[in-house]
Amino acid sequence: MMAEMNQEEQDQLNEELLLKALHDDNIMEFREEFLHLHPYDQARFYIKIEPDERLKIYRYLSPKEVSDFFEVLDIEDSEYKDILAEMVPQYATDMLSHMYTDNAVDVLNKLDKLQAASYLTIMNKESAQEIKDLLHYEESTAGSIMTTEYIAISANQTVRSAMHILKNEAPTAETIYYVFVIDDDRRLVGVISLRDLIISNDDTMISEIMSSRVVSITVDADQEEAANQMRDYDLLALPVVDFQNHLLGIITVDDIIDVIDEEASDDYSKLAAVMDVDTPDKNPFSAAKKRLPWLIILLFLGMFTASLIGRFEDTLNQVSILAVFIPLIAGMAGNTGTQALAVAVRGIATGELEEESRWKLVLREGGTGLITGSICGLLVVIVVYLWKGELFLGFLVGISILASLFVATLAGTLVPIIMHKLKIDPAVASGPFITTMNDLTSILIYFGLATLFMSYLVH
Amino acid sequence: MMAEMNQEEQDQLNEELLLKALHDDNIMEFREEFLHLHPYDQARFYIKIEPDERLKIYRYLSPKEVSDFFEVLDIEDSEYKDILAEMVPQYATDMLSHMYTDNAVDVLNKLDKLQAASYLTIMNKESAQEIKDLLHYEESTAGSIMTTEYIAISANQTVRSAMHILKNEAPTAETIYYVFVIDDDRRLVGVISLRDLIISNDDTMISEIMSSRVVSITVDADQEEAANQMRDYDLLALPVVDFQNHLLGIITVDDIIDVIDEEASDDYSKLAAVMDVDTPDKNPFSAAKKRLPWLIILLFLGMFTASLIGRFEDTLNQVSILAVFIPLIAGMAGNTGTQALAVAVRGIATGELEEESRWKLVLREGGTGLITGSICGLLVVIVVYLWKGELFLGFLVGISILASLFVATLAGTLVPIIMHKLKIDPAVASGPFITTMNDLTSILIYFGLATLFMSYLVH
Repeated sequence: MMAEMNQEEQDQLNEELLLKALHDDNIMEFREEFLHLHPYDQARFYIKIEPDERLKIYRYLSPKEVSDFFEVLDIEDSEYKDILAEMVPQYATDMLSHMYTDNAVDVLNKLDKLQAASYLTIMNKESAQEIKDLLHYEESTAGSIMTTEYIAISANQTVRSAMHILKNEAPTAETIYYVFVIDDDRRLVGVISLRDLIISNDDTMISEIMSSRVVSITVDADQEEAANQMRDYDLLALPVVDFQNHLLGIITVDDIIDVIDEEASDDYSKLAAVMDVDTPDKNPFSAAKKRLPWLIILLFLGMFTASLIGRFEDTLNQVSILAVFIPLIAGMAGNTGTQALAVAVRGIATGELEEESRWKLVLREGGTGLITGSICGLLVVIVVYLWKGELFLGFLVGISILASLFVATLAGTLVPIIMHKLKIDPAVASGPFITTMNDLTSILIYFGLATLFMSYLVH
Repeated sequence: MMAEMNQEEQDQLNEELLLKALHDDNIMEFREEFLHLHPYDQARFYIKIEPDERLKIYRYLSPKEVSDFFEVLDIEDSEYKDILAEMVPQYATDMLSHMYTDNAVDVLNKLDKLQAASYLTIMNKESAQEIKDLLHYEESTAGSIMTTEYIAISANQTVRSAMHILKNEAPTAETIYYVFVIDDDRRLVGVISLRDLIISNDDTMISEIMSSRVVSITVDADQEEAANQMRDYDLLALPVVDFQNHLLGIITVDDIIDVIDEEASDDYSKLAAVMDVDTPDKNPFSAAKKRLPWLIILLFLGMFTASLIGRFEDTLNQVSILAVFIPLIAGMAGNTGTQALAVAVRGIATGELEEESRWKLVLREGGTGLITGSICGLLVVIVVYLWKGELFLGFLVGISILASLFVATLAGTLVPIIMHKLKIDPAVASGPFITTMNDLTSILIYFGLATLFMSYLVH
């Protein structure tokens, strides 16, 4: 705890020192203090201060120095436009060309086309071409998150010469901890870790110590697949290849952590029917705007359920006690449906659910629905009998629960599987959506049964 | 796609070759083929085959060779006991002592105390002590996921001598890409990356090039905090210290990816009220067993709602059309509550919601509830009027929706915040739980208003 507080106090102190240096126009002190910070802390300071204070930063620091923390900026997509517009175009362009290519591409993708094009026009040709090459890849593919700043060597050289290349390229490569081995056609033929290079004899040939079974991913694969591979194989970098196995770039572990975070919170958001749970809302209006589309769809689905009950008004008029159990039955169906949905959505997302085993899952979930339905149904019969003394009513509610839970569990499993087959993200079948759907079917079952056996209910 | 298929075909082929070698007792061929595989693929083969086939593996491979893939085994916690029992105790012990300490501790934590103790008894003293030291740390703390196999040097030595130490320790250290600098008391004073070592002159002193502002974490901090720090600072390894800043161990990025995965799927599971959505169930019974505890709690909460409606039986008898809107109102309250809950739970989990801003969030969510409630309420008034021609009924339902959405949004925000204050994991306030709670309050609002204004409803 003490070390923790010191850290926070230290942060506070640094911030005050930096602000003072800025206001006093003390360039030397500002540079001394600021360049000592970790880029993440530099970025935090940079977004905390006012725009006119940032203008000073552009005078005190070189584009290269700004690029170091610009890569880890934690701001909303829409804010990049304005913050880049603070810099003179040539400064912004220099800054962008000093960033790792994949990060520069990320930033440019957040601008409107015209602004991005204007920076690319005045950028030096080489950097501009690298960026343009990466801008082509579709969002969420391996290509869209890869970088081209990797180290590649050929197999017929010695460890000594490989280390020589590595030392030269270390300042610009995004990672130097894996070195990729390519043939004359730039096809990926092997990989060697810096660890292996370091413990090997200087005269050893790369071909002798490289691993020729390289885990790689094709450029159009989903970024989630890349994340799964890096997690499973504990990789710090994953090579990206085209269909002919030509090495195009690498994905580094820091980008993968962001992907895992992003995908998890995406699934989570959709289960809760909120768009993008991790982007904080500044005011109630922006929060309401994100939630209302879902709520209004669900409202109309709910109206549909209401009109369904409306059709059973005669039944309700005769036995108004039926209404008492509506939320219980609908609620239980919604709950089991959400559980089944979550299992199926995650199974599909993590890739653990292989094609063949999908129908096995449906069968298993059907069984699960029968078991949970039977147990909950039986409990209800007992409770209703003890509470109201009505055995038939108890059975009616109990059997409705059994049937609803069975149907809801199946629906919770089938809907995401079918959506996945139709190439729709199964997570879109959010919890509230499936809940409202299951409200409808469970009410239909309940009132259907009640109307059928009306004569037993009226005494 | 082609490269992909080749990969799968290759896997299939490897598996057949390996099985054939096992059945033919062809040790040489098996070793040749198996040791060529990535540990993750070795692990997949190992858990796929039969126990009697695994017995052969223990004869063909050394404990050290088995330890390589045993670290990345993807089996359920309860299965470790049996799979270790397949090996003779001395073999299992040797295997465990060859694993990285943090991973060996993970495995031992999954066994019963007696079995774990028996392995530690016959293990060599040094390894046993290292493991015992780590076994003390509480689950989910930084200490519980750290390893002690890091490289530490002192500041007053040259790059050359540091590289010498590094080369010697490279075969056993879990990562060599960061080297930690300690003083004579083993206090952490700096860090230097292998990248910096490699590009520096051999005669440079470590003190000149090391970074003295080290991001570290205290040993009792939550593993989620460690994950957030490593993500924010893009670290490959995070040093773990005690309160006096003594270096105790390091956390490596592969462990952090597992933590992020685990925590995300944990939050997701709880939102859906399933225990552990990512552990696949073998049969409907194990799936039902995981879900029933939640369902039964929710069933009794639902019963409570039912008994609440029961109290309004008179109102219902007079105006049975009221029942028609029960699922709509309860459902909408449940949906908004889940949305608000998701935002609050994630905000707390990612640490983005600082203490001070919690009450701001409550205010903002109150505002959001009023806005969504007003819009949905107004829509309902219009729809009910158009559908039933009943303006008063429309207003009753509309106002109930407005009030319910407001209350539900507040509840969805307040419940996790209060739970967090009480040191309970806010994710436990799962979606279905808050939904069922909100069923109850919304029904109370709806029937309360209806009973109050009964005279306007009966015509």
